[in-house]
Amino acid sequence: MKDEFYEKTISTKPIFSGRVIDLVVKDVELPDGKTSKREIINHPGAVAVIALTKENKILLVKQFRKPLEKTIVEIPAGKLEIGEDPLECAKRELEEETGYKALNIKFITSFYTSPGFADELIHIYFTDQIEIGEINCDEDEFLSVMEISLQEAEKLIEQQIIHDAKTVYAIQFLKLKGGLT
Amino acid sequence: MKDEFYEKTISTKPIFSGRVIDLVVKDVELPDGKTSKREIINHPGAVAVIALTKENKILLVKQFRKPLEKTIVEIPAGKLEIGEDPLECAKRELEEETGYKALNIKFITSFYTSPGFADELIHIYFTDQIEIGEINCDEDEFLSVMEISLQEAEKLIEQQIIHDAKTVYAIQFLKLKGGLT
Repeated sequence: MKDEFYEKTISTKPIFSGRVIDLVVKDVELPDGKTSKREIINHPGAVAVIALTKENKILLVKQFRKPLEKTIVEIPAGKLEIGEDPLECAKRELEEETGYKALNIKFITSFYTSPGFADELIHIYFTDQIEIGEINCDEDEFLSVMEISLQEAEKLIEQQIIHDAKTVYAIQFLKLKGGLT
Repeated sequence: MKDEFYEKTISTKPIFSGRVIDLVVKDVELPDGKTSKREIINHPGAVAVIALTKENKILLVKQFRKPLEKTIVEIPAGKLEIGEDPLECAKRELEEETGYKALNIKFITSFYTSPGFADELIHIYFTDQIEIGEINCDEDEFLSVMEISLQEAEKLIEQQIIHDAKTVYAIQFLKLKGGLT
């Protein structure tokens, strides 16, 4: 696609370099020659896994999200480590967070979560072939695992307990797939 | 839901206050009594609109996204102004970006885009009753409007031209609704 709307970088000011995100402010030249500032979060990217048990339940994790100051329920997910293959990351995060190993796993899609201010790209995988493995969360990660039906998941969306983009996407994906009963 | 995983704020360090986002770093007490740091982006929240024309095409906007360094195609969307009602914001952004007025508009759902590091909540609306209004973009906003079928939209997802959470969600929503031909 021709970038008729391209914004040329005039200068980049690093503001913050953290454990999860970096922040820079860029001065850009707009298509009309004027200038503006863009506040940009750089993120390593993430994976998330839509995983079905033998009983055709979806695996979800309940965890406190400090930015929201509340506990929500999400599909298993995590950040990419530097140079990590997203598929390997998906298998790793699934087992670390839920204790289930994926015997096979399939790439579904990827999308940017907040293209207006962040470059975070999340890769979504699907598996319905899992076996018991070993839970092994990060030391600052506390969560519990849930196995629920599509109907229960839809209730959690209404209750805003499932309340994030990747998990709402996952529930739609399963409805379209007709994969849950 | 009982917040058994609650993380108590020990201290909050403001890092950056911008035009779109703020960044703070919080020292938190974890459920096991240990401490950790959370890097948190505060965002005013946003709205996005799934809008169908009389010809049953979806309205999309093509714009350059500096964080991605590329042009992508999204449903019309924008940030909430301070104290702005999301429904009013949805009508405003639809007309500003596409030149179409919504005669009626319905709330569909809302979700957090990146709950791991940001509090951005996006509210999704649907309308299939639109009439010609007046395009009036922000001065640093350059975009073009597209009206396409569901099949064309799905091609754009495959081509990663539609490549963001809210728009992928919107296409799934329309498939589930059976609202596009």
